[in-house]
Amino acid sequence: MHSAGKGSEPVVDVVDLAARLIACDSVTPAQGAVFDLLGAALVPLGFVVDRFVTGEAPDGPVENLLAVRGSGGRHVAFAGHVDVVAPGPGWASPPFAPEQRHGLLFGRGAVDMKGAVAAFVAAAERVPADAGTISLIITGDEEGPAVYGTRALIDRMAARGIAPDLCLVGEPTSQQRLGDMVKIGRRGSVNIWIDVPGRQGHVAYPHLADNPIPKLVAALGAIEAVTLDTGNAWFQPSNIEVTDITVGNPATNVIPGHAAARLSIRFNDEHRGDELVERITAIVHAHAPEARVEGRISGEAFLTQPGAFSALVSAAIERHTGLTPELSTTGGTSDARFLSRLCPTVEFGLLNATMHKVDEAVAVDDLRALVAIYADIALAGLATQPTR
Amino acid sequence: MHSAGKGSEPVVDVVDLAARLIACDSVTPAQGAVFDLLGAALVPLGFVVDRFVTGEAPDGPVENLLAVRGSGGRHVAFAGHVDVVAPGPGWASPPFAPEQRHGLLFGRGAVDMKGAVAAFVAAAERVPADAGTISLIITGDEEGPAVYGTRALIDRMAARGIAPDLCLVGEPTSQQRLGDMVKIGRRGSVNIWIDVPGRQGHVAYPHLADNPIPKLVAALGAIEAVTLDTGNAWFQPSNIEVTDITVGNPATNVIPGHAAARLSIRFNDEHRGDELVERITAIVHAHAPEARVEGRISGEAFLTQPGAFSALVSAAIERHTGLTPELSTTGGTSDARFLSRLCPTVEFGLLNATMHKVDEAVAVDDLRALVAIYADIALAGLATQPTR
Repeated sequence: MHSAGKGSEPVVDVVDLAARLIACDSVTPAQGAVFDLLGAALVPLGFVVDRFVTGEAPDGPVENLLAVRGSGGRHVAFAGHVDVVAPGPGWASPPFAPEQRHGLLFGRGAVDMKGAVAAFVAAAERVPADAGTISLIITGDEEGPAVYGTRALIDRMAARGIAPDLCLVGEPTSQQRLGDMVKIGRRGSVNIWIDVPGRQGHVAYPHLADNPIPKLVAALGAIEAVTLDTGNAWFQPSNIEVTDITVGNPATNVIPGHAAARLSIRFNDEHRGDELVERITAIVHAHAPEARVEGRISGEAFLTQPGAFSALVSAAIERHTGLTPELSTTGGTSDARFLSRLCPTVEFGLLNATMHKVDEAVAVDDLRALVAIYADIALAGLATQPTR
Repeated sequence: MHSAGKGSEPVVDVVDLAARLIACDSVTPAQGAVFDLLGAALVPLGFVVDRFVTGEAPDGPVENLLAVRGSGGRHVAFAGHVDVVAPGPGWASPPFAPEQRHGLLFGRGAVDMKGAVAAFVAAAERVPADAGTISLIITGDEEGPAVYGTRALIDRMAARGIAPDLCLVGEPTSQQRLGDMVKIGRRGSVNIWIDVPGRQGHVAYPHLADNPIPKLVAALGAIEAVTLDTGNAWFQPSNIEVTDITVGNPATNVIPGHAAARLSIRFNDEHRGDELVERITAIVHAHAPEARVEGRISGEAFLTQPGAFSALVSAAIERHTGLTPELSTTGGTSDARFLSRLCPTVEFGLLNATMHKVDEAVAVDDLRALVAIYADIALAGLATQPTR
């Protein structure tokens, strides 16, 4: 058995490990083989591997893995997922039969994010065991409902008294070249359902009916007029989109009995999801007092203020790529929205150009560079006392 | 064969004829037996019966009947239909097995409008053949698409050079008691379909998408703010209802690629359907220049100005019921919208309380009174020179 530690020659080949992870068909929710493989790669490096399955249908069950090496000093966590989105048809080579062509490794999950998970492992091997505590927080459900994924891992960590000081999420944040972008925050996301009841009737006798559509239209018009904010130093402006309206009335001569709409709000750190639901509810009720309004918060906004952590991440990236990464909060949500409650959290990973697409691929050189960057981040994170 | 004419004793029993018409299952589109029966009742009274089938799927074929007695003098037309709406379940007695209970004749079509058609026949028998020309304009599709019904009858009359001077439509216009309401006009009706195209995208990247919903909402808000008119001496205000909105986007994180709505406008004689479509189109295009707007006019508004014709109808009603009918333009559309293009047209018929409902029924006394009223209307109409 290989013993991890200072002075040992690294034995984990990141490209080989990434390829073997890709070879496990692990469309969300991932279970079994892909975790077997990951656990088998971690145990020889000194990690204690805790795998557990949790949750019930329809959002579960989900398998998760928490691997920890060491128990003293500072604690740097690498977080990510081994589930992948369905590959769809039209691939040049089979999506779960990884193949190298022209310096690229092809396969579903190459950049999102089995390549980064393999780099976590390879980077951990390069960090001396006595430098501090390193953990891997890996879920089988990031691309799905994410109800029993990273949230369950966070509960598990709390129950076991495991509290990282810094967290690096390995999502593919790079845009054009490896290292050009780091995410230091994400907007929050809330969906809101509006249902306006009315009274059905014949269009020839409108006084006997109560059309809910004018009320819904007035409410949506007022919502469209809202400017939540104009953005700030680290965030673009918050944005409200009406994503659906449903009446479902096939009859041209009938006034419908109800009308519904759905909103999606992506909001920055000036708002909280529940306050936005309250605010939308008040607007709707001003136009349709009897309306039902329900919000479901997918995640709150978070921001890891630029400081020591982002600086050491940037320095590691610059050292191995020559690029100074842009610190960004753009894009969709990620599990960093949950992890950021634990400790300062930054996201950095491979190029996202091919993620969720046909012929997803990672440059072999990028994979090797990512190992070096992650190792440097871990070493620096374990060595410093960052501003929280 | 019975020969109609002054001095003959009437032989048509309106209750018996109504019952026999009801016994023919003639859910829209009516064909065959019900027309055989009606034709057989009219021929002995001296009518020349012209039956024809016209139109193709989906709005046809439809059977119609045009019966004319006489060719000289003035011409009074009775118009109506022998098709009925589907009876549905829950009848106390079978809907096509007419049954008298407590002075009421039960059956689908009793008031809408086989009772009135039977009264047309019985009334015609009481009018001397030399008093002038009487016609029955009877369609098998009034309750359906009405594309090949009364419109085809009007074309047939034009081709044969038949032009009535007055037209009485036998729709059930009475509200609480036989004779309390006559319709001297109807609002027009137009449906308008609005389709706003956009560009689909992810809600996290709204700048890459083009949400059509805000444009549609703004257009509908502007349409809701329109007051077409405030009504006039004979009409209630015109009214716009948004009857449906369709987006059909199941994904909470997707900005939809198109949004559609449908309007129903019931309008009085201050408007024409095509002008309303133009006006709505201009409003929509102010908010969504690329929107597609399509109108379909079901019928223009019409008004038979109160005058000699309505006065003689009112007098006949008053003579046999003691009631002075209200001259109204309320309610839905009827085939009077087509017939009113030919000549002054008034609608009068049985109580509409049970029409289109379970246990549709007509009072036997009302049926007999209706025969007397229709006969008086015909006699007076043939005798006078009404103001057109």
